[in-house]
Amino acid sequence: MKLATLRNGRPDGQLVVVSADLERCVSAGRIAPTLQAALDDWDRAAPSLAELAARLDEGAIAGQAFDPAAAEAPLPRAYQWIDGSGYMNHLERVRSLKGSKDEELQSIRPLIYQGGSDLLSAPTAPIVVPSDDLALDFEAEVGVVIGPVPMGATRQQAAAAIRLVTILNDVSLRRLVADDLQNGFGFFHAKPSTAFAPIVMTPDRLGGHWRDNRLHLKLRVQVNGTLYGQPDAGVGMHFDFADLIVEAARTRGLGAGTIIGGGTVSNPHDETLPIKRDGIGFACIAEARTAEKAKYGRARTPFLKPGDRVRIAAVDSEGHSVFGDIDQVVALLSD
Amino acid sequence: MKLATLRNGRPDGQLVVVSADLERCVSAGRIAPTLQAALDDWDRAAPSLAELAARLDEGAIAGQAFDPAAAEAPLPRAYQWIDGSGYMNHLERVRSLKGSKDEELQSIRPLIYQGGSDLLSAPTAPIVVPSDDLALDFEAEVGVVIGPVPMGATRQQAAAAIRLVTILNDVSLRRLVADDLQNGFGFFHAKPSTAFAPIVMTPDRLGGHWRDNRLHLKLRVQVNGTLYGQPDAGVGMHFDFADLIVEAARTRGLGAGTIIGGGTVSNPHDETLPIKRDGIGFACIAEARTAEKAKYGRARTPFLKPGDRVRIAAVDSEGHSVFGDIDQVVALLSD
Repeated sequence: MKLATLRNGRPDGQLVVVSADLERCVSAGRIAPTLQAALDDWDRAAPSLAELAARLDEGAIAGQAFDPAAAEAPLPRAYQWIDGSGYMNHLERVRSLKGSKDEELQSIRPLIYQGGSDLLSAPTAPIVVPSDDLALDFEAEVGVVIGPVPMGATRQQAAAAIRLVTILNDVSLRRLVADDLQNGFGFFHAKPSTAFAPIVMTPDRLGGHWRDNRLHLKLRVQVNGTLYGQPDAGVGMHFDFADLIVEAARTRGLGAGTIIGGGTVSNPHDETLPIKRDGIGFACIAEARTAEKAKYGRARTPFLKPGDRVRIAAVDSEGHSVFGDIDQVVALLSD
Repeated sequence: MKLATLRNGRPDGQLVVVSADLERCVSAGRIAPTLQAALDDWDRAAPSLAELAARLDEGAIAGQAFDPAAAEAPLPRAYQWIDGSGYMNHLERVRSLKGSKDEELQSIRPLIYQGGSDLLSAPTAPIVVPSDDLALDFEAEVGVVIGPVPMGATRQQAAAAIRLVTILNDVSLRRLVADDLQNGFGFFHAKPSTAFAPIVMTPDRLGGHWRDNRLHLKLRVQVNGTLYGQPDAGVGMHFDFADLIVEAARTRGLGAGTIIGGGTVSNPHDETLPIKRDGIGFACIAEARTAEKAKYGRARTPFLKPGDRVRIAAVDSEGHSVFGDIDQVVALLSD
């Protein structure tokens, strides 16, 4: 099924089941008031939610119009958000910007970091920054929401724990990355609130688009209406979601409702911006700038500034936005 | 008031109000079912909880016996756990073990890291490790639980957001620290589940033990019954809790229920283990080993091994354990 969380004045919002065409929705309150409550009791809740979804799709329930602008992040706050780096091509392109060193190790074991999950951003929430000189970037990623995973989990246990799939924008303040990694204890200030698409979906609803623990869809990224990229999330994902979960569970168990990100989607190519209509392009600005430095000797594409609009969608071959759009405008804290 | 969370088969447990002498407790379910629910609605819940505590202390309510062995962590899972490094002496002693470099910067701005908060350990939960060669250490720390804090908060806003105080054991796998910091994106594998004392307390209940945004109590640490340290948490805390909250909120807001750790408590001295009855000693093994290396040319105190027992308490001048004891035994995952 497809699920979303609507704003209702409470910190965790209201869980709704959304129709296959994303046009209508119905409250799931009788089954679980919130997505976290459903995840805490998944074996009981999931069949009931699936049945409700089937009745909504059949028309047996009218439901109400689904308004993505009223959607929170599917988990408006989560007990854990771990971002991995599944795409080696992204690491290779941006390594010069990071404080991270060991290239060989990174190809054997995925890099992961502990992100802040107390305030996750709605798909249409502004990206609020404290100043306009922090080299604000987006990172278009795939994410999964998992059930409980024991310490030392196998790949099989990890894959079986994947409950829901979605996409996200891992907002990054590039100017603070090196500071966080070289002088501190890891990512913190460089990674403010992550934003999510309105819809999370069970892997079975994705059909052939979900296989080998990877999402096989293009992530279309537009900035101020200009296409920046549409890399395929199924291509070049060196570490799949089972690998990332296994890595995260090496020295600890993972609680139900943990969100795991796959890292910035990145496909190898030698394009620079602007890209052609059928180009691949980039899922973050840092990569576009690295390609420009290599080709022209200097970066040309600016980082985001207040007023800029970033739109991210996972699109199928017919151009449908499978999880709904992330559509954010940059705002200064003082405004 | 003093609050605790009892195991009830649900992920967030049952909130109880505990008597001043930690002997009795009463369910707070009519006010808030869980500590997170109370924190989400603090302005309404706090006065009612305080009133319930007063009635329990007066004997107007009998309550039930409070059993620390039935206590979960006050927040068995939290939306955020951020650990800071308030005590410069700890950083100076263990810097050689870390991947972190910039000494000058660290004295101006506190180091903080994003910890895992999805599964926080009960005060008497075993410390489960996947293998016995990871250089397992404890870190005795003070922690505060806060209300919502806006991005760019002032020191005054930060101090006013402190809701509850407790102590914790920031369990650390020293062998993985350098790996996490030098090759990766920050602490992750080196920091498995953090454990908490059974009791959280409002600062007003601490009287003179809470001032200047610091806890002025000794943290007594015993390993297998031997005193390893009893440093004063109010001494040498270069960055106080308001500083740590301000630092955490530089580029993002902080959600209600965020836990902030003050870092390993550390007082300057030139002792080594074993310490005298009135000695200061150490709140982690790494510091004891550094002192031994300086004095004897090599470290003598081993890291923790399966079967070892660590006991941590904040004690007042009469030797009372103010938040109840953290009392953990090390266990191997495979056992």
